[in-house]
Amino acid sequence: MRIVCTITEMKEIISEQKKHGKSIGFVPTMGYLHEGHLSLVEEAKKHDEFIVISIFVNPLQFGPNEDFERYPRDIERDEKLAKAAGVDVIFYPNIKEMYPNDLTCSVRVQKGVNILCGKSRPGHFDGVATVVMKLFHIVSPMRAYFGMKDAQQVAVIENMIADFNLNVQLMKCQTLRENDGLAKSSRNVYLTPEERRQAPEIYSSLLNAKNKINSGEKNIATLKVEIAEHLTTKTNGIVDYVEILAYPSLEKMDHCEGVMIIAIALKFSQARLIDNMTVTI
Amino acid sequence: MRIVCTITEMKEIISEQKKHGKSIGFVPTMGYLHEGHLSLVEEAKKHDEFIVISIFVNPLQFGPNEDFERYPRDIERDEKLAKAAGVDVIFYPNIKEMYPNDLTCSVRVQKGVNILCGKSRPGHFDGVATVVMKLFHIVSPMRAYFGMKDAQQVAVIENMIADFNLNVQLMKCQTLRENDGLAKSSRNVYLTPEERRQAPEIYSSLLNAKNKINSGEKNIATLKVEIAEHLTTKTNGIVDYVEILAYPSLEKMDHCEGVMIIAIALKFSQARLIDNMTVTI
Repeated sequence: MRIVCTITEMKEIISEQKKHGKSIGFVPTMGYLHEGHLSLVEEAKKHDEFIVISIFVNPLQFGPNEDFERYPRDIERDEKLAKAAGVDVIFYPNIKEMYPNDLTCSVRVQKGVNILCGKSRPGHFDGVATVVMKLFHIVSPMRAYFGMKDAQQVAVIENMIADFNLNVQLMKCQTLRENDGLAKSSRNVYLTPEERRQAPEIYSSLLNAKNKINSGEKNIATLKVEIAEHLTTKTNGIVDYVEILAYPSLEKMDHCEGVMIIAIALKFSQARLIDNMTVTI
Repeated sequence: MRIVCTITEMKEIISEQKKHGKSIGFVPTMGYLHEGHLSLVEEAKKHDEFIVISIFVNPLQFGPNEDFERYPRDIERDEKLAKAAGVDVIFYPNIKEMYPNDLTCSVRVQKGVNILCGKSRPGHFDGVATVVMKLFHIVSPMRAYFGMKDAQQVAVIENMIADFNLNVQLMKCQTLRENDGLAKSSRNVYLTPEERRQAPEIYSSLLNAKNKINSGEKNIATLKVEIAEHLTTKTNGIVDYVEILAYPSLEKMDHCEGVMIIAIALKFSQARLIDNMTVTI
């Protein structure tokens, strides 16, 4: 496994691999790898022959009052985990390499951003889309792997790929879950024992809603109230949002139809958990 | 020569040509081809083996009060000219093919747009950059050919290629000129005989300024006044702008330095002519 810090070298390696007919699989990350990232690498290895992960904490997607400086970094640990997972190259540029000058151009995301987690993070998805666009051109992958835990990010990337006719296939990977259904997250450790016992109710409420939609329920307001009541009754968490939206446009709908996402954010005392499920009727 | 109307077919053709190791040269146009476009094709044939031109009148780059509907179109004539010039494929999509839905993402150009011709066309270069980004992904050229007549557009594309790490080489092609130096333009026919006689003074004033810069003149205000006086004295035209800017950032400078562009727009009775020249010291 190699660690590559410059765009020029990264492009040369990719060009060389492509000459030998290798398909490139790409997993973009901000580092501090956990089993979610590693499951993306595992998925990539099923489809592609040469696996690149990027580790870059992208300042563009952090707001002025967000935790860019405090975001956890541990390249030595990441290196060991990536090597063990079978990654071929870690692309690990510094900020000057990715943004040598102030950008004159950026990607503006006009839809699907002022809802869910994007509501409280203006400009966040512009930053995500811009850096992913750059990384796609640097790594030129055949397939890029994203986790559905962050469904809004996946929707933005899916729309960007379609809008700009990008030559990359988006691989949407299942959210990893604990045995009791709770979505894996580094934030789960902040839960009290009692909250940890309640937290799988997020998944239960998603499953219930999905089952009701599959059984013919079309009324979005009814479904949302049921999810919120489920969460309020069975947990001490405070509902931040419950949404049922068209996917991947993330637009509101009059009634259940086509491909949808059910998305939840629930605040416990020390952790805000998110989870979601897609449904197609 | 083939005419291709769908993105899928265009991508298939490119993929096939690349398998055979052919380098793709690309000339994006809005059609109604003239000798400027054909000189770009001629240049492309010197470097690349498979030449694609696109013909697409891009609604995104026209303002609400601009001439999108009236923009001249003549695909049959274009087809003959392109074939004679040795083009391999005309990519000729309709609007629904390029924009099947409202875009969720677009390119925002934040620098070098509120000056020169961009000053009076808000959003114009966002539209140009967005469609060129799409076309680059559809045609995947090794080289793309643009005429320096529209220097501001070339600067925007040059900056976009750098900012997004695009895998395409920008080929900046010389402005075609009449024997007396006047930049070729379809608008030249609107000049009265007297104006046509005066119009080469635009080129003369650019040459004078370039010579002065090369001889050591650093003062931008002095140079701009001299150009404006030259134009006012020797023509009946009205100066719309005279600018000397850093290139390709198109930022104002304190004094002459590095790579610069001298740009002029001059209004005659029925035609507004533009011209420019780059200088490096």
